[in-house]
Amino acid sequence: MDLTAPTAALAAAAADLVRLVPGKLVDPVLSGVLLTATAAGVELGASDRERTARVSCPALVHTDGQVLVPAKPLAETLRALTEPEVRLVVEGNRLAIRAEGARFALPLLDHTLHPGVTSVSGSGGVVSGASLATALSTVASTAARDEALPVFTGVRLRSEDDRLVLRATDRYRMAIASLPWAADGEVDVMVPATLLVEVAKQVSGVGQVRLVAAANQFAASWGQTAVTTAVLDGTYLSETKLALSDVDTRVVVDADALAAATRRVALYSDARGVVKLEVGDSEVRLRATDQNAGEAEESVKTTVSGGRTSPAYQSRYLLDALRPFAGQRVELAIQPGMRATVLTAVDPGEVELRYILMPMLPPKA
Amino acid sequence: MDLTAPTAALAAAAADLVRLVPGKLVDPVLSGVLLTATAAGVELGASDRERTARVSCPALVHTDGQVLVPAKPLAETLRALTEPEVRLVVEGNRLAIRAEGARFALPLLDHTLHPGVTSVSGSGGVVSGASLATALSTVASTAARDEALPVFTGVRLRSEDDRLVLRATDRYRMAIASLPWAADGEVDVMVPATLLVEVAKQVSGVGQVRLVAAANQFAASWGQTAVTTAVLDGTYLSETKLALSDVDTRVVVDADALAAATRRVALYSDARGVVKLEVGDSEVRLRATDQNAGEAEESVKTTVSGGRTSPAYQSRYLLDALRPFAGQRVELAIQPGMRATVLTAVDPGEVELRYILMPMLPPKA
Repeated sequence: MDLTAPTAALAAAAADLVRLVPGKLVDPVLSGVLLTATAAGVELGASDRERTARVSCPALVHTDGQVLVPAKPLAETLRALTEPEVRLVVEGNRLAIRAEGARFALPLLDHTLHPGVTSVSGSGGVVSGASLATALSTVASTAARDEALPVFTGVRLRSEDDRLVLRATDRYRMAIASLPWAADGEVDVMVPATLLVEVAKQVSGVGQVRLVAAANQFAASWGQTAVTTAVLDGTYLSETKLALSDVDTRVVVDADALAAATRRVALYSDARGVVKLEVGDSEVRLRATDQNAGEAEESVKTTVSGGRTSPAYQSRYLLDALRPFAGQRVELAIQPGMRATVLTAVDPGEVELRYILMPMLPPKA
Repeated sequence: MDLTAPTAALAAAAADLVRLVPGKLVDPVLSGVLLTATAAGVELGASDRERTARVSCPALVHTDGQVLVPAKPLAETLRALTEPEVRLVVEGNRLAIRAEGARFALPLLDHTLHPGVTSVSGSGGVVSGASLATALSTVASTAARDEALPVFTGVRLRSEDDRLVLRATDRYRMAIASLPWAADGEVDVMVPATLLVEVAKQVSGVGQVRLVAAANQFAASWGQTAVTTAVLDGTYLSETKLALSDVDTRVVVDADALAAATRRVALYSDARGVVKLEVGDSEVRLRATDQNAGEAEESVKTTVSGGRTSPAYQSRYLLDALRPFAGQRVELAIQPGMRATVLTAVDPGEVELRYILMPMLPPKA
């Protein structure tokens, strides 16, 4: 293999690949990047057996070939280079990365041991990259990170007519986003949130992202990048569990003003981090109190309709719930007792988001 | 006590104070801020018995008084406020922090238990804040962080005629900076580096900083701020230990170019992180090799005089040594064998810096 490529493009391709498939420490082959040089350019592929990714990059290929080298050292070397062009050439049992005055040589791994990079054929559809990134930035971060409960580490993607609905929960809160969906088939899969967090970062500037589901597999592709993953078992996450029939209090408030006040008042909250939202006639009064820290209260102007049910929340979760509505007015639909509050934007955009937050017992006076 | 103060100025004063005296967890009194309101304004004081600080802030004082409250919660509350003015008023056993629509109440601690904020009288002199910040940013970060060897956690400040000389070492490298000193007396003290790291951040925009040494005490003051500390026992750190008589190779190089190449080549270094500097006629060639990582080499254009002694360094320490010379040409004075290399700027400014770096055994080929 012998090729010359634009350094920035090749570095970006390698970095994207490593972030999509971080690799497994147990097996160097599964932490490798499979470089395939053909007349069309160079393709970078990776697989950890559960997840695969490939990214194409333009290159002037002098000699075709395929090699496997450690992925992270390749990405780090390319990222550190400032020369506009870089040459990758096999020299003995090394892949040499050559730039003006410099040579970096990575050991070749046995590419015949690599599981290869598969593609998924199934039914799916197309979404806008910006909308998918917006939806995932909230939904994927709401999933649990605790691997002990794998079922809560996923995002359920489900097509419902001309909308794609994304749902995730860690049991304390749930985020549900829907966005326009140009379908050529149906999808209903549970996809690991860690992968979708990375996909969200990479697609925010992309026009179209194609999503495909097949038996036990999910694939996303955009631009020069394609990623596949095994799916989680997750038919549990259905809408029916959400009983919102008892909403008796609706509060409309500037999300940033409520978040800023929450951050201040939460400095005085108890060990559980609880703040109380006292609903008044045209304001909510946030309160926190702690035996050692002292106490705090702050009023925020709101529009209130219905009753005066006054819930308490864990401040960290309330801030997470308000973040996706930054810069907007948000409605809190509040139910009495220990039942969920639902946050929605007053003027939703293309991506419609519902954030469901469980209340806490109020702090002791 | 009852006063109104500009929020930003009071928040900055409280933040500066907390950073200079982070307090001790064992005793809430030593993590408190002593607020003293007089017609002149409000003074914030802190002491952990070894270190004290006080910062003055303008305020409109309605009622004089002195209270002690937890320092970090006060600083965090003030920092979070966006109102231009804030009122501090004693209400029962609370200090209330009041802004439009909000009240935050901190518990009062017993201010009679506070050790008070002393001042140091002794001999000293004046330096420029910018020069002191520049010198400390390198010297203070060279001291060891390991509290098990307190003698290496200090910076020695010594007046030598019209220069103030700062020295610190962690035994693997040493930094020596000198800057202009307007003396009214002599100083020769070993000051904890952790405090000086914070002083460096706070004085960079200040015209003059006054430094004073007395028996077992050191004080620095600038603008509205004064800090004192107990000194370390450190007469050991003397110039005489540096035998630089055997310098046989001098390399002059662009510091940024050498640092960038070091960062790239170091990706291929062995477990010790060693890179070798092969000195040629008009270039140095950096080399690193590791059985697993592969190998790397890169050339950097230099001016070489004297011999061709080719040392090896721990890459991390070489990068630390080059950092203070960023944007400049640096001379490496190299000695044969396992003797130190000295880095100096080709065109030093007001602050003259010598960075002394111990070599390592070269990597195995």
